[in-house]
Order: sequence, then C-alpha cells, then structure tokens
Amino acid sequence: MLKYDPAKMVERAKGCLANKKEIIEVADKLSQEGFSNIFFIGVGGTITYAWSIQETLKPLTTLEYHAEHAADFNTLGNKKFTKDSLVVISSSTGDTKEVVEAVDKAKAAGARVVGFVDTPGSPLAEKADYYIPGGSYYRYYTFFLRLVHNNGEYPEFDEMYANLEKLPELMPTVAEAAEKDAEEFARIHRDDAIQYLIGSGNMWGPTYSYAMCIMEEMQWMRTKSVTAGDFFHGTLEVIGRDDSVILFYGEDATRPQMERAEKFLHTICKNVTVFDTAKYELPGIDKKFRGLFSPIVLGGITGRIGVYLEEYGKHPMPIRRYYRKLDY
Amino acid sequence: MLKYDPAKMVERAKGCLANKKEIIEVADKLSQEGFSNIFFIGVGGTITYAWSIQETLKPLTTLEYHAEHAADFNTLGNKKFTKDSLVVISSSTGDTKEVVEAVDKAKAAGARVVGFVDTPGSPLAEKADYYIPGGSYYRYYTFFLRLVHNNGEYPEFDEMYANLEKLPELMPTVAEAAEKDAEEFARIHRDDAIQYLIGSGNMWGPTYSYAMCIMEEMQWMRTKSVTAGDFFHGTLEVIGRDDSVILFYGEDATRPQMERAEKFLHTICKNVTVFDTAKYELPGIDKKFRGLFSPIVLGGITGRIGVYLEEYGKHPMPIRRYYRKLDY
Repeated sequence: MLKYDPAKMVERAKGCLANKKEIIEVADKLSQEGFSNIFFIGVGGTITYAWSIQETLKPLTTLEYHAEHAADFNTLGNKKFTKDSLVVISSSTGDTKEVVEAVDKAKAAGARVVGFVDTPGSPLAEKADYYIPGGSYYRYYTFFLRLVHNNGEYPEFDEMYANLEKLPELMPTVAEAAEKDAEEFARIHRDDAIQYLIGSGNMWGPTYSYAMCIMEEMQWMRTKSVTAGDFFHGTLEVIGRDDSVILFYGEDATRPQMERAEKFLHTICKNVTVFDTAKYELPGIDKKFRGLFSPIVLGGITGRIGVYLEEYGKHPMPIRRYYRKLDY
Repeated sequence: MLKYDPAKMVERAKGCLANKKEIIEVADKLSQEGFSNIFFIGVGGTITYAWSIQETLKPLTTLEYHAEHAADFNTLGNKKFTKDSLVVISSSTGDTKEVVEAVDKAKAAGARVVGFVDTPGSPLAEKADYYIPGGSYYRYYTFFLRLVHNNGEYPEFDEMYANLEKLPELMPTVAEAAEKDAEEFARIHRDDAIQYLIGSGNMWGPTYSYAMCIMEEMQWMRTKSVTAGDFFHGTLEVIGRDDSVILFYGEDATRPQMERAEKFLHTICKNVTVFDTAKYELPGIDKKFRGLFSPIVLGGITGRIGVYLEEYGKHPMPIRRYYRKLDY
C-alpha cells in the first residue's frame, strides 16, 4: 500500500484521546458555571466540524448551539451572543485571521473561549481561556457530549467513550479495506472535468470539507458538493451519464436520503462511487455508536483516496498556488 | 430588451404586497399565543430563503430560529422541536414530498404551521393552519420582521414596510440598468466549463439558489457556489485565470467579505463578473433598508441574466430531463 504507515495512523488517533481528563474537566467546569448558549466558530475546514457536531447534537439536546462562520460573526454579529455564551474554536496553525478577530470580539464581550488548537504558543492557543492541544472528532465528541451528559441528556457518555477508545486500533483495518476502491476511484476519475460529492447528516460537514479542503485546495480539482436532501432540488439535472459522483455514506438517521440519491443516480449515471462506512467491520464497536463515529471512519477511507489522487495527479498535497502565498 | 415586460414585473411584485393585512394578523396572533422557537423548514430553493432570513434575523433578534432542511427534519429530528414550536414552510407546487412529510410530522406533534404556498387547494395549502398564498421575500420580511417587532426588537417595522411598498415600481429600473452586464455575461460565459458563484450574508441563500435552481436545474450548467468567507479556505486554489467567477454583492454588514474576495480575484483571474445591488439607484428607499432589500433587488438583476442564458444556451428554462419526469 502506497505511503501507508499503520503504526503512525494508530499513534496519531490515540494522541487525540490523550486529552480526555482535561477536556472533561473543562466541560464539567463550564457546565457548573453555566452558559446561555454555545458558539462553535470556524472557517473553511473548521466550520465543517461545527456543522457536523450540530447534526450530532440536534436529536440529542436542547442546549442552544450555533455553528457560526467567523467571517459572519465578525461582520454581521449575532444578538444571541452575550458574555454568557460559550465560544469554541479550532485551528491548526493557530493564527487564522478571521478566527483571531472573532476571539478578540468574543473576549471583549466577556465570553469564555475554549480553543482546540494544534500549535502551542500560537495567537489562538494564547488567547483561549481553556486551551486543548489539537482538534479532531475524538476531542469534539468528548467535549460536546460531556456538556450534553451534564445537561442530563446523554447518560451513555462513559459507554460512548469506552467505544471511542477502541477506534484508533481499528483504523488500519478501515484503510486496508478501502484501499482497492480508493485506488480505483483516483485512477479512473482524477482528471474528470468535475467531481460531484454527496453527503448527509453528520457526514455533510466532512463531504463539503473533502471537496473544498482536499480536492479543491490540495489537488486543484473542480468539485460541487451537495447534501443528499438538496440533490433532488436542482443538482440532479446537471448530472450526465459520464459524470463522476461520489457518495459518502454514514450511519446516522439520514441514511435513507443517501439511499434515495444512490438509487436514482444508478438510473442516469455510470460513474457512481460509493464509500459507505457501514461496509467496514469495526469489531468491538457497539452498533449504536457507529453513526456517531462515521466521520472518523470516513477519515480512514479518504486518507487512502488522497494518496492516490496525489499519485495519479502528480500533485503532492502541500503544493499551493495562492493560499498563504499571496496577500488577501 | 429581450422577453421584457415591465408592467408584468411590477404587477407580480405588487401582488406580493397584497397579503399585508393577513400576514400581520397571523404574526400578531402567533406572537400573542407565544411560541418557543421558529422552524423555517424547506428544501432546495425554499431552504435558501430560510438561510437568508436567518442571516437577516441574526443581528436583530433573540428569538430562537432554525433554518431546517425538511429531509433532515424528517430523518434526524430535532430535540428542540415541540408542540410549542412554530413551523413556517414555503412551496410553489404545494406538494413537495419532503415538506409534506415534515408538515405531517409537525402537526402530529401539535405544532402550528404557517404555509406560504403558491397553489391553493394543494396538499400543503390544505395542511397549513395558516395559509398565505405565495412566498417571496416581500412576504417573509413582513411576517418575520413583524414577529421581531412584536418581540420588542424592531420598532422600525412600519417604516420598513413603507419602503418595501415602493420597491415594485422600482424593479424595472433595476432590470434596465442590469441589462447590458447581464447580456454580456451570458454571451461570453454561457458555455464555460464551470461557473463559480460567491455571495455572503443574506445574499448567500440567493447565490446558492441561483447556482443550483437556475444554472444547474434550468440551464444544465456546472456550478460551484461558495460563501465569501469560505472562499479563502479552499476554493481559491482551484481558480485559474480563465475561470468565470460571479460575485453577487448585497448591502448588509458582510460586504467587506465580498470586497476581500473581489480584490483578490482580480489578481489571479480575468473573468470576474460583479453584480452589486449597491450600484443600482433606488429612489425613495432609505439607505438603512437597502441591505435588507438586496435579495429582492438581485432578483431584478438575475431575471435579466436568465433571459440571456436561455437565449445563448438555446435552452428554455422549463426544460427538465429528470426533475418530476422520473421517479425518485
């Protein structure tokens, strides 16, 4: 398998579990102090995490939650935002312009900021009232579901966490099972005119993100991502038999939307590629948590797609033409 | 001017004002009865109205508002939805599958439903507890801003409405001023490989909708729409000098995001087309309402683009290959 290091894969995932104690401490403290609402503020890739968490929380909790784009928060504002709001941000570099501005604004209003930031010592790591080293679904689930648990709405928190802890060791089996399909997809479709990507529920965030942050930004491929629900209200018309459509299936309650899209697509299009987390064995993981974990499992799959997009596209992931190269 | 009927344009817009009395009566009654939150439930084009209203309400009100996709409402559900929730739906045909299912679900829970539905006697017109004939920003602004007014947060309601009433007569001047740019854009770019569309704030909904419902659905053109805020976090990388990028500027507080995107685009791309509502004269309209009215003004502009996309694409708007032709 090309560029494959299962030990590193497991190690990295396990690293996301290393902060359990501090994340829970922060969440418990915040629940005890109380908050009027939560603003998960992001841009680009990080706003898609916020969207995914939103779909996770919808059926679970009455806690008021807003997935807010930093650029909108900075310009439009939000009347529901007060000093009693809880701000969550995430950043890899720790210096994303719009997020720094949003955090300054939030702190000036007196709100508390929890920062999941990869880079210690960076502006965002320094500005956060509570600093957690690094993002990832592992950490977000721990934090947000703990808040829901503390709100009396998620008694299965400990059970969930015990399952989450088993995931890192399983990720290589996901990558290996995805290998053939990932390689084939990239080999055949790397240079297609455009890629259509469809996702739903907690997989919509990762789907949008894969299109924008990986295919567009890192591979300069043209994409259009659309939710399974919206697909039937416009985008279906532009799909021809030779177009390439990718479906990123998860296992939450929105699966019927994906099934509807897939069934229809097979009647009009001959290039339908399905990556479905349900097809991957996850020994030891309780069925009831598979839907929650789908975005993590997808990461094991898309990691393999990416390797072959790079290879067949002759385009190493780190190459940028404009991003952080030009001023804007 | 091709396919241009200013009298009909004015008449149609004025028709959207005809329901003032009943919309206000419904809003006042609901405010008096009270509600815990509002769910504007839609799909495709109608969910984009809900998004736009959301951006309008953000800086104005503490009322709890959810823009909810019907397919997600039906499958995922939302724990904040109760019998005390207020449901708003919109439909042209009045029989959109997912919305019918959502309304049945909402009514079974005991919630009240306000239906902005074009087709009297249709399932959705019949199912709504309060039936308003037809959608449009005119009617949504009247309804939602009345609720905000009743919540003590929009004292300028009457002033806003007096301005709104002047808009229909001004729409032909918008269409005429847009004519040259609209024709030129369509003539040059109708057959480009893909159209990139950028919008922000209350213009993001109309931008997404124009890409999906007009260009993709009615013209079979490939599109990617992205918010001005997200543009810098991925999509910028895929833009080459020959790509066609359209910016739909409005006049709300998010304009700086659009300016940032436009400024950058001119350095890397030679096909940047700007349609900016601020460039259109609207005599008699108070400056402070122009941002609110931008989506309506944009409708006068995009109407002219559409006429020429049809003409140069030799593709009449009503032609569909799949939508409501095949089963799905």
